[in-house]
Formats: sequence, structure tokens, C-alpha cells
Amino acid sequence: MTILLSVTGFDPSRWWQALHDAAPERRIVLDPADAGDEAIDYAVVWKQPPGLLATLPHLKAIFSIGAGVDHILADRQLPDVPIARIVADDLKERMSEYVLWRVLDHFRRGSSYRKQQAQRIWHERMQPGAREITVGIMGLGALGIDAAKKLRVMGFDVAGWSRSVKTVSGVKTYAGADGLGDFLAVSDIIVVLLPLTDDTRGIIGRDLLARLKRDTPLGGPVLINAGRGALQDEAAILAALDDGRLMEASLDVFTVEPLPAESRLWSHPKVFVTPHAAALSDPDALAPIIIRQIGAHERGETLQNVVDRQAGY
Amino acid sequence: MTILLSVTGFDPSRWWQALHDAAPERRIVLDPADAGDEAIDYAVVWKQPPGLLATLPHLKAIFSIGAGVDHILADRQLPDVPIARIVADDLKERMSEYVLWRVLDHFRRGSSYRKQQAQRIWHERMQPGAREITVGIMGLGALGIDAAKKLRVMGFDVAGWSRSVKTVSGVKTYAGADGLGDFLAVSDIIVVLLPLTDDTRGIIGRDLLARLKRDTPLGGPVLINAGRGALQDEAAILAALDDGRLMEASLDVFTVEPLPAESRLWSHPKVFVTPHAAALSDPDALAPIIIRQIGAHERGETLQNVVDRQAGY
Repeated sequence: MTILLSVTGFDPSRWWQALHDAAPERRIVLDPADAGDEAIDYAVVWKQPPGLLATLPHLKAIFSIGAGVDHILADRQLPDVPIARIVADDLKERMSEYVLWRVLDHFRRGSSYRKQQAQRIWHERMQPGAREITVGIMGLGALGIDAAKKLRVMGFDVAGWSRSVKTVSGVKTYAGADGLGDFLAVSDIIVVLLPLTDDTRGIIGRDLLARLKRDTPLGGPVLINAGRGALQDEAAILAALDDGRLMEASLDVFTVEPLPAESRLWSHPKVFVTPHAAALSDPDALAPIIIRQIGAHERGETLQNVVDRQAGY
Repeated sequence: MTILLSVTGFDPSRWWQALHDAAPERRIVLDPADAGDEAIDYAVVWKQPPGLLATLPHLKAIFSIGAGVDHILADRQLPDVPIARIVADDLKERMSEYVLWRVLDHFRRGSSYRKQQAQRIWHERMQPGAREITVGIMGLGALGIDAAKKLRVMGFDVAGWSRSVKTVSGVKTYAGADGLGDFLAVSDIIVVLLPLTDDTRGIIGRDLLARLKRDTPLGGPVLINAGRGALQDEAAILAALDDGRLMEASLDVFTVEPLPAESRLWSHPKVFVTPHAAALSDPDALAPIIIRQIGAHERGETLQNVVDRQAGY
């Protein structure tokens, strides 16, 4: 039983070590050629080279090292085996840290106070209370629900939007294209945690930005995207920031990563850029989860968090 | 029955209106002379002119418009009537917002990412998980306990230090001068929410800063003070930042406020300055609490949150 590890853009040696530490008895190879005569039964991947998995006749399941799987599904020659996402407390906690950090920094007027400090200006700014603000979360998967729960603890009102109808305690939920308008009408700060699918590609575009609430207790709407870069139209976001429809934005993901040096997002005074760092995939925390899934699958048990290829997540 | 309102540094008209809205039938004056022949029974104050309250022979109780009362006790001619602090959900929530905001910004390396953005550098920084960090809260009153609870929800370990021994669920507590060393030895980020008393004046000084934990998962200790400016020795903080004993600081309060333009704190790259804005006293939220206390006192009920003059809070 051999595991193939193919993680583009990550340090394979850290993942190899973490998988090895979690299962010292298993053989883990970085290239199918290294398996020799042995069959490769499982693949642990991030953005695998297209066609690579199709060359493995014994493959039984594919594991993403993150919450997203669009990077796997982009491969047109994907073998017909189950694909499992990672759902891990570690990932959820790190993503919620990012969401709360960015919500609080916009809400408590971080950029204004940093500007005032640079000019030695002592001036207390008008500050609404958390209960006057509705944070609208787009995407109510495990990450969205965890962030919602923690925002509620801080006193914010929380709304949620998802493809299909969901019930989340303490959260006003909206669903589908029909519910989007009502969702946008109540949301002062939008947090995007959607999966990337055919339906969501480019969703943060001109149309959606034009429908954002204008009058918010902060003076304008705020956008936070920690989902996927391809969810957003960056030209439309820049235009909305320039003409004031959007007050501020925190972006962790971009259509092209690393964000090209010539992008205006880097220098826009209303944008905060992080390098796809919202929720670090920590190999030591996540490898044991993948190894447990492999063990369960070998014993004939059902895999957890299997992707619906039709839905794309 | 007349109420005297004397709030130095705040807008008296906003407080007057809020008290009036909460109790339209009561007379509220800004100057004892305006009361004419009527007795002044209650005083609602912030940093009242020294000696002012001693001129009111019928005074029954004094109410602070904030959580602190050091500004009242500084008056050497204070009449011997009960002094009540404000304990309000609104104040607690705003203070916890500030604490979480500042903890997350230091923890998630806000200043590093802002610097990288200015230089268009795409580089993910090493990021520990919240559970690897202990936030140490100095001061376990209503504000400290609320912040501790919310930090726990985010996954942080929380330690607490107070004058007398306290038990707080999920928080490792330490007390008194004897417990301070052990508390500092476990704390990666220090949050100061202490009252200002003879015992705590200048406590954030050279001695305490020299005893901070050096090796933290973030690379050094962080200080956040949202208590009172006189708790800190600003020269000692600057020295600790300069020689690296302290990694970063967020300061909302200062020994002299407004912070003088010539203070090095304004321009220090490791310091984040806010203008005593951590927890705005919102008259509309707080005036009804004071009015309820006055009503209860008139009915002969016990006042809530009465200050222990000996302890100073």
C-alpha cells in the first residue's frame, strides 16, 4: 500500500515528514516512478499536474490537503474515485481567527487610527456597537459556520448565504440566487468563504458590488475574501473602491497568485492584502486526519467529507 | 430631587440628554448654582473639579460614567457617600472588541503584513495556532473576565492575574505579588485591564518588563494596555521595545492624555496608539443604568458595584 504525495506550491518534505510521522509503516512517494512495482492506492494532493492521477490504475481515493478541491477538479482527466476534503478544527480555527481579525480591524477603524497615529492626531472616532453591525457570510460550510458562531459571541448580528437552504443557530440565512438580494440588503460587512464552482466563479463582480448596502453604520460596506481568488473580479473591486460603493476590503486570495507586482491592489489605500495566509494548512495537524481517513477506507468504512463532483465541493 | 452632572473631558450635553431621556421627570443640572434652593441628591461625574462634591450637603451617592473611579478618588475632599462604578454589557462588549482586535492583530502579524504589502512582498509568515499562545490578563474584574471568555472561544489559552485570588472557568489564575512571576512566565501576550490604585500605579514598569517571557511562539512578548495610563512607565516601555525585550505594544491609555505630540510612542514602529478609545462610554447605553441605580437607592435598595475606597476600585 503506497501513498502518492503531490503538492504543488507547498513544501513536499514537510508534508512527507508529517504523513510519515502519522503512519511510519506506510510508503509515501513523491513520484509514481518511485513506487516501482507497488500499486499506488491513495493520493494526497494540492494542484496535482493534470493527468497525473489518471496514470494510477489502482487509485482508490484522492485527498485534498485543504478545504478546497477546485484545484483537483480542474484536472480534466480525473479518475472516478472518491475525493475527500479536509475538515479540521485546526483549519476552522485559523480561518475564524482571520475572519474575526479582519472584521474587527475594519469595524474598529484600524486604517483610520493608523493614519491618525502617523500624523500624531488624537481623535476618537464615532464607534457603533457590534450589535449595530450585520456581518454577512457567503458560504455556510464548516468554515462559515465556525466564523458565524464566533462573530455572534462578539455581539455581531450574522447573516448567511449559501447555495442550498441551511439552518444555523442564531444566524439569519438566505439561499440561492433568489435570496442574494435580501442577504446583501442586510449585510454591512461581507465575508466570502464560498467554494469555487461553476456557479460561484466571478460572483464578487460588478453586479454584486452594485447591490451592496450603501448606508452602513460604518459609512459604507466592507468586503473580506478568504475563499478563492477566482470568486472575485479584481477590476470590479477596484472600481467599486474608487467610486466609494465599497468602503474597504481585505483580500487573502487573488485570481493570480502570487499577486503580480503591477496589481493596483498592492498599493490601494483601502485594501489590505495577505498572501493566501488566512488559514495555513499545518501538515502536523492535518496529516493525521488524512491517515485516519485512509485507515478507515481500508477497513471498508465510509470516507468523511467526500466531494460532490456535480456541486463542485 | 436633583442630579448634578459634572463630566470633564466628555460632552455634557450628550450626557444631559441621555440622562433626561432615561428620566424626563428628574431635574439635571450642570452646576450646583443652577439647582437654586433644591437639594442635590446624586452626582454623575467624570473627573469632577476637586472639592466640588464636598459643597453638596445632601449628596447621597456618586456615580462614575465609566468602569474606573480613580478620577473620582483623586479628589481629596470627597464626601463620605457611596461611589458606584458602571458595569454594563455595552462597556464590556466594546472593551472585549478592542482586546480581541489587538490580540489578533499582533498574533496574526498585522504589522509585518502591512509592511510587506507596502513593499509588494508575497510571503507567508510562520503562524502558530491560537492554542499555542497564552494571553495573560492583568485584572479580573467584569471587563477582564469577559475578554478572557471570548479569547477562550477563539482557542487561546488564557491566564489571569488579580490582587486577590479569583476563580474563572477555563482560566489559570494567579494572585498578588507572589503570583506575578508565575503569571508572567506563562504569558505570551499581556493584556492590562487593571484599576488604577496605589498598588497598581506604575506597575507596567522596568521590573515587570524585565520579567516578561522572552521566548514566545511569536518571537517575543506583546503588551496591550487598555486600563489606565498611570499604570505604565512609558520610558520603560520604550526602552524594552528598543532593546527587544518587548516585541510590540498596543496602547490605548497614556500617563498624559492627549498623548503629547513630542512622545516617541507616536512614531515608534512597534507601537499602535489609539486615543483612549478602547471602550467608548455611550451615554445612551449607560445613562439608563445610572438612572436605575438612583431609583433603586431611593427605594432603599442596595446600590450595585459600589467602590471599596480602601482597595481603590
